[in-house]
Amino acid sequence: MESAETQIRFGILGCAQIAKKLSRAITLAPNAALYAVASRSSDKAKAFAAANGFPPSAKAYGSYEALLDDPDVDAVYVPLPTSLHRQWAVKVAEKKKHVLLEKPVALNAAELEEILAACESNGVQFMDATMWMHHPRTAVMKELLDDSERFGEIKVIHSTFTFAGGPDFLTDNIRVSPHLDALGALGDVGWYCIRSILWAASYHLPQTAVASRNPVINDAGVILSCGASLYWPDGKFTEILTNISNKVATFHCSFFTSLSLDLTVLGTKSSLRVNDYAGPLDEKAASFHVTTQFGFGKPLVKEEWVACESPQEAGMVGEFARLVAGIKRNGCKPEKEWGVLSWKTQVVLDAVKASIDRGFEPVEIVT
Amino acid sequence: MESAETQIRFGILGCAQIAKKLSRAITLAPNAALYAVASRSSDKAKAFAAANGFPPSAKAYGSYEALLDDPDVDAVYVPLPTSLHRQWAVKVAEKKKHVLLEKPVALNAAELEEILAACESNGVQFMDATMWMHHPRTAVMKELLDDSERFGEIKVIHSTFTFAGGPDFLTDNIRVSPHLDALGALGDVGWYCIRSILWAASYHLPQTAVASRNPVINDAGVILSCGASLYWPDGKFTEILTNISNKVATFHCSFFTSLSLDLTVLGTKSSLRVNDYAGPLDEKAASFHVTTQFGFGKPLVKEEWVACESPQEAGMVGEFARLVAGIKRNGCKPEKEWGVLSWKTQVVLDAVKASIDRGFEPVEIVT
Repeated sequence: MESAETQIRFGILGCAQIAKKLSRAITLAPNAALYAVASRSSDKAKAFAAANGFPPSAKAYGSYEALLDDPDVDAVYVPLPTSLHRQWAVKVAEKKKHVLLEKPVALNAAELEEILAACESNGVQFMDATMWMHHPRTAVMKELLDDSERFGEIKVIHSTFTFAGGPDFLTDNIRVSPHLDALGALGDVGWYCIRSILWAASYHLPQTAVASRNPVINDAGVILSCGASLYWPDGKFTEILTNISNKVATFHCSFFTSLSLDLTVLGTKSSLRVNDYAGPLDEKAASFHVTTQFGFGKPLVKEEWVACESPQEAGMVGEFARLVAGIKRNGCKPEKEWGVLSWKTQVVLDAVKASIDRGFEPVEIVT
Repeated sequence: MESAETQIRFGILGCAQIAKKLSRAITLAPNAALYAVASRSSDKAKAFAAANGFPPSAKAYGSYEALLDDPDVDAVYVPLPTSLHRQWAVKVAEKKKHVLLEKPVALNAAELEEILAACESNGVQFMDATMWMHHPRTAVMKELLDDSERFGEIKVIHSTFTFAGGPDFLTDNIRVSPHLDALGALGDVGWYCIRSILWAASYHLPQTAVASRNPVINDAGVILSCGASLYWPDGKFTEILTNISNKVATFHCSFFTSLSLDLTVLGTKSSLRVNDYAGPLDEKAASFHVTTQFGFGKPLVKEEWVACESPQEAGMVGEFARLVAGIKRNGCKPEKEWGVLSWKTQVVLDAVKASIDRGFEPVEIVT
């Protein structure tokens, strides 16, 4: 644990359910401290602070602006509904606070570009709150995928994130409201699918997105379930033999299908399977399976375990606070890569949405 | 083991690699006996019989016709290249022999219909050699899928069958030859994907097939890898809440991607995962995983094991021989359901092929 002087002081905008998890994560990260929370009601902010491990000295503000005006806040976690992201993330940046933004980061790439521009011009760090990026298992799996001797070339990626929200969720939750989280399941859980696919594909953008033909959309136009296929440039027969790219990814996300968090990556030499990629079943250790077959011999299936000292969200907060501390104390520049990953994820998400809107036509991803 | 008098006597047309596995299966099935094998060379037939457990009394014929003319042959296993199926399966039926036909059963549904008509008019049993249909695990998994209390309604199915054939396979194997197995990977391994999807969907045909946009096709026009999405009729929001159908299935098959045999079925209440659905890693016992989540609680993941006394192909031969014995001795009628399953599989396969041929347009499956 660092001293209170060197810890990065976090403010939280709003008392969303997910903010409870992040409060704990900030407590667990040695280089971060819970400093302030804001709600439209100061009573609500006080109650949240008391219930979520904030120290007695913490500030509980009755408005978001008041929190942003506090000169001692270093960084702000923004778990507001997506429709408020552009407005508030830009304000956070303009107040020279670093931005940890809940996903989906924006309603579309143009909004995100505004946010990223505000972060850049104000010299603050941007990161989206995709927690599993920071789990140690993620790095171990990536090492495998990048090891062409062991894994070969990636040909097929399949990812899902589904959960069964239940009737109340499907009618009342903010994630099915067009004014709050207009991207619905595509934004809330499809975000993870798309990120996992891009992650596996070393963030090479696909060329084409084609939405599945049976999205379920509520009466207000919000997506409750959907999927898509993503394509990287075609390979030809001769190229296959020399391992030139030909990759396809599929995903499915839903608010009304039983829990799944599957990621499967098939390479020419091995395959990887993980069934809890975005949210490990166990905080202390997580596993994945690698299958390798030599010729037509019996396949070798191995489960690899990776220990995790603290939950992945604490790892995320720690990494974000590390970057912020570098900027604050050592004159480092913000790490732009995190914004690029958010932007690529959003661009693919936008293309899937466009394909749905255009009757499942292929949408080219031109950047 | 039944007495030699009551065992069903099998003849095998050709000495294909897969015929070795079937020979062993016929030996293992108590109600079946290896009786004859035919090749275009009688020396080759004799060598095959000697190497594959045929009894000394077995016949080794130097022509397929000779085997079919043997009045003591009850049933014929046909592992010939797909392009020869129509011709030879029809001849087998016309000789009043029962037909166990290797998959893919035909080059298209029209050919299969000729075969099925010949079987029907000659009163013989038809079955395709999709072995995993006969594994005891398959029945246990189906019980789970059919249990709406436990599994809910099926929403998403994903299936793969890929293997890495290697450069020699990709250039020389009969499965990439347009004159022998013109359907390539779609027929050879995509058959399993499609069957598994139909199986999970209780054999309700999808309404629409859309092929993935990046099949790999060799210079002779044979598919080396492909995939598709299959759609059942759209549900509307209100219908989702009352569990009316809205289902999507995706599959991928390939000759140049590392081994995968994944089947995932996501229901509204539970999900099922199996990573060796068509070919269990272990002959003696096979497992699958069931994941259930109550509300937003911690998901419960359970691995269920099913013992298997004999390999699945012996179960297949046993079931086929049981049906044949019923016809031969008890005046039973042929079980037509097996032909229906083959036909439905072929119809979907044809639709995927048509979608590829038409530039990945949606193809309606009208029957």
